[in-house]
Amino acid sequence: MDIKSIGIIGLGLMGGSIGLSLKKLYPHINIIGYDHNLTHIKEAIDLNLVDMVTKNIEEIWQCDLAILAIPVDGIISLIGQISTIPMMTTIIDMGSTKKLICDSIPKAIRSNFVATHPMTGTEKSGPTAAIDGLYTGKTVVLCDTEKSGAHQLEIVKKLYKALGMNIIYMDSTSHDKHAAFISHMPHVISYALANTVMRQEDPKSIIALAGGGFRDMSRIAKSSPDMWESIIRQNKINVLDSIINFKQELDSFEKMLLNEDWEGVKKWMTQANSLHDIL
Amino acid sequence: MDIKSIGIIGLGLMGGSIGLSLKKLYPHINIIGYDHNLTHIKEAIDLNLVDMVTKNIEEIWQCDLAILAIPVDGIISLIGQISTIPMMTTIIDMGSTKKLICDSIPKAIRSNFVATHPMTGTEKSGPTAAIDGLYTGKTVVLCDTEKSGAHQLEIVKKLYKALGMNIIYMDSTSHDKHAAFISHMPHVISYALANTVMRQEDPKSIIALAGGGFRDMSRIAKSSPDMWESIIRQNKINVLDSIINFKQELDSFEKMLLNEDWEGVKKWMTQANSLHDIL
Repeated sequence: MDIKSIGIIGLGLMGGSIGLSLKKLYPHINIIGYDHNLTHIKEAIDLNLVDMVTKNIEEIWQCDLAILAIPVDGIISLIGQISTIPMMTTIIDMGSTKKLICDSIPKAIRSNFVATHPMTGTEKSGPTAAIDGLYTGKTVVLCDTEKSGAHQLEIVKKLYKALGMNIIYMDSTSHDKHAAFISHMPHVISYALANTVMRQEDPKSIIALAGGGFRDMSRIAKSSPDMWESIIRQNKINVLDSIINFKQELDSFEKMLLNEDWEGVKKWMTQANSLHDIL
Repeated sequence: MDIKSIGIIGLGLMGGSIGLSLKKLYPHINIIGYDHNLTHIKEAIDLNLVDMVTKNIEEIWQCDLAILAIPVDGIISLIGQISTIPMMTTIIDMGSTKKLICDSIPKAIRSNFVATHPMTGTEKSGPTAAIDGLYTGKTVVLCDTEKSGAHQLEIVKKLYKALGMNIIYMDSTSHDKHAAFISHMPHVISYALANTVMRQEDPKSIIALAGGGFRDMSRIAKSSPDMWESIIRQNKINVLDSIINFKQELDSFEKMLLNEDWEGVKKWMTQANSLHDIL
């Protein structure tokens, strides 16, 4: 990439991991980290996630490429504070919602901005969760790209291709609908499952009886509440819609159970099995 | 173990895997497989899951230890057909429900029988899914052991210890209640999630957008409908109870969303996070 500096705001799982990978990919580019959490800064230095850190966010806006790897609320409030930046600067966010973020970009910097959502992550957070390879082989969604500058779009495509990602394009409204069903609602269900089981069962029984199924289903219930509360809030309508759909599905199972419609139950499970042909 | 022969009925994931491990652990014991599915028999021979196979189920009942690794309905119907077996014979089942199975054991052979539920498995089934090590480090629940013979119980404890399992004891009624919350209900939720998402999203979007969260949450939706329909049927009341509890949890989230009670949402997610301290 024909740029000299990359700034990363937020040195947690997403920002720290991209720092690690970019340092490897582009040893000649200066990678500068910023985080408002001082412990995170210390950890990022210890873990060597970036080339250098700064306490002055203005230094990030002076980079050729600035990556916003912070919760979706933070993205909106931070991006609203930018007034002028060099014409060729590229800014990307990596938030899990896209519509409100895209709508909040000040006009003066709209062409500098590219809205992106890398479909990757783990239930862990913070700099210690950062891993090289988090992005490799995964999908990244680029939204409303007609509003981004050609130069900026080119930089971002090069960036994600270099990380080994599969790039797809979507308008931000569609993104948020799809993301509600395929990502946000499954998180809500995992939180609900964890709470249901912990309300009912004592820790000893959970440890003794939890097989691979429960462990997998409850893994993302360990995800950061700060991050996920704001995702759910920003995508409220779509998340509600997805939960209503899920409850209808569960209700139809419950009805079959009450009616002892075992052929129906088997058919319903067989339908679900066909996911095997997709994933 | 001071026995000469082990018979395994059902050469799928559970039976095939225990065959593989027992062959390694006890090269001097003759391990005989039986399956009513001829393809499974062929695969079991090709994969070397047992020492030999038989088409005559009576040969299994002549073994010192007979392992029933078949769906829970099959266990009940098969066990009801046994009239007399040698006094020292041990029979175990590995079904995911325990109450109906324990209640169905003919009195004449009750002391021969030990009810067990190894808390392990994958979403795959059939002999090709069998793996050595499936049981290692996992928990096995032994139920209503006061009704089993001392010799039989000793054999089963040795067996599971040799496989590297952690043995716990429970009455079959309690087992079915716990299993509903920690295993059966999570399977229902996974099936419901897979069906919701496939009803809403086209396969292309699912492939493109599915991250680790959705993949993990939907993995067990690929589980065998034959096996799971009969588990759900046998444990109907407890599964219904667990689903009602889960729906209450989801409803309370939905209410917070509708009321825009974001502090409540965050608290609810933080509660779920505490699972981290357990698992």
